[in-house]
Amino acid sequence: MGKKLINDPDNVVKEMIEGIVMASNDRLEKLDGYNIVLRKDAPVEKVALVSGGGSGHEPAHAAYVGQGMLDAAVAGDVFTSPTPDAIFEAVKAVDSGNGVLLIIKNYTGDLMNFEMAAEMAEAEGIEIEQVIVNDDVAVEDSLYTTGRRGVAGTVFVHKIAGAKAASGAELKEVKRSAEKVIKNVRTKGVAINPCQLPAAENSTFSLAEDEMEMGIGIHGEPGTEKVKIKKVDEIVDSLLKDILTDLKIKKDDKVALMVNGMGGTPLMELYIANRRANNFLSNKGIKISKNYVGEFMTSLEMEGLSLTILKLDGDLTNLLEAETEVNLLK
Amino acid sequence: MGKKLINDPDNVVKEMIEGIVMASNDRLEKLDGYNIVLRKDAPVEKVALVSGGGSGHEPAHAAYVGQGMLDAAVAGDVFTSPTPDAIFEAVKAVDSGNGVLLIIKNYTGDLMNFEMAAEMAEAEGIEIEQVIVNDDVAVEDSLYTTGRRGVAGTVFVHKIAGAKAASGAELKEVKRSAEKVIKNVRTKGVAINPCQLPAAENSTFSLAEDEMEMGIGIHGEPGTEKVKIKKVDEIVDSLLKDILTDLKIKKDDKVALMVNGMGGTPLMELYIANRRANNFLSNKGIKISKNYVGEFMTSLEMEGLSLTILKLDGDLTNLLEAETEVNLLK
Repeated sequence: MGKKLINDPDNVVKEMIEGIVMASNDRLEKLDGYNIVLRKDAPVEKVALVSGGGSGHEPAHAAYVGQGMLDAAVAGDVFTSPTPDAIFEAVKAVDSGNGVLLIIKNYTGDLMNFEMAAEMAEAEGIEIEQVIVNDDVAVEDSLYTTGRRGVAGTVFVHKIAGAKAASGAELKEVKRSAEKVIKNVRTKGVAINPCQLPAAENSTFSLAEDEMEMGIGIHGEPGTEKVKIKKVDEIVDSLLKDILTDLKIKKDDKVALMVNGMGGTPLMELYIANRRANNFLSNKGIKISKNYVGEFMTSLEMEGLSLTILKLDGDLTNLLEAETEVNLLK
Repeated sequence: MGKKLINDPDNVVKEMIEGIVMASNDRLEKLDGYNIVLRKDAPVEKVALVSGGGSGHEPAHAAYVGQGMLDAAVAGDVFTSPTPDAIFEAVKAVDSGNGVLLIIKNYTGDLMNFEMAAEMAEAEGIEIEQVIVNDDVAVEDSLYTTGRRGVAGTVFVHKIAGAKAASGAELKEVKRSAEKVIKNVRTKGVAINPCQLPAAENSTFSLAEDEMEMGIGIHGEPGTEKVKIKKVDEIVDSLLKDILTDLKIKKDDKVALMVNGMGGTPLMELYIANRRANNFLSNKGIKISKNYVGEFMTSLEMEGLSLTILKLDGDLTNLLEAETEVNLLK
């Protein structure tokens, strides 16, 4: 443990952002002097979407920039909020005069810095709105959060608000779509091995050889309990029960299901978990309209997974299915 | 180490295949009684492509089944070749009377079993051809191979031969395209932590806290040397030098570049490696026409990466860019 394929811990974010832009096959660009990824054709004549947060959660958020999703993503240092200044620069770069929606995961640092950036933007006459994603059912408050944490469900907010914005909707309508997703989406995760910070000698938490932690967040924050590792089918059942109870899902409801790897989990294990999640939901008469399996919101090389359920009603299905150039959400 | 999010080591492949089919949003199906993934609309009126091999390399090969790529993938047990019988079943399920191309990674067990399946198919009057991928420049022979190993470059064979078949080409022409990719593609990898088999107590090889292994394969086979871990820029340079020397790439040549995670490597590290690979190639005047970063050919949760270069000439560029419903290769 502890080994990394990096150069200098102080440069990981800048170098990573450059690598993401290069991997975009000419779709994206880096804003000079900032760890910000933009659509190359920004500003586009529509409501713009900006998200971001600490690094270490890749592909979030930079890889979600593109037609049909985000217009810009702002990357802070590892597990550290981006500065208000940087967020403000991203907002200015993508605003076409149609306003900007900020999509914020619920962490205290992010909230403060996005709020300050919003004030700076408003002072310059940019129309701005914010939504706060808090999909994690594991804990009510946590190390870095008042209220629930924002985790993998954020990706559905990017997708659906992005599709709404691409359709030409106004800022208030785009915000309403984002809020509807936030109301309808819940996540819970588990880890069997912790994440490891690039600059740190030690892992963020520790687990015995036969232990796992339920309810983990995406920053190595403690979860709800350390227990003996179980069969993955039992783990999936437990996570889904908590999610469904909270969402009040019932028979014949339609949902999107996301099985998200935390960074160090082999795809084999995610697919095995996906099988059980499908069977569990089908047995309850819940219809899975769309199923995603892969890495969407990670925590460096943490070994674990999270399950996200988005309840689909009204126009959410069509917006989720809408065109995007971001392959991960196709 | 050693913990897994699974149920029973004996059932991982079957459960995984079921999970992959469920994740396909109704595009794929499992062939009853076999660990085989098929296009749901198979057989399609065209040359069919079948690949496969041992499991533990996900998304290879099942997630490459789809319009524009494979028609079927046959999954053996973990790191174990599928049986001739299973391969033969896959061939029969996808042959539309236009013949079948088998795409085989160069491992002794795979070669034997695919060859036997080919003979069984020919005996039933199915027109069949085979190609053997051997892109790994690290070693001439290895634990499971005579000649070079077949690794991540196989994915480009799936894509380009798949596009050729989708265009309506005949079996001989599809085979010629596959052979051209094999001639033009090279890979080399590195690991900082080994893979871990579902049923085994121990890892497949061991590395000290400050060590990495150059030239690793995808089954925990030994590489070429254990050395002190270096900065990733130095690692990338070393891998690319060996690849370029072998491929005889020169200034103004066009290439596709794949940065492949081995299963346990955070995306952050892959993007940092991608940055250097882009800079290294650009500095030599080599043009990167297409850049892929992610997990394409893994080795359970091995922490490491491989770099693949495909030299693009003739119609390879267009075939690589052709439509496919497989998001990973878009």
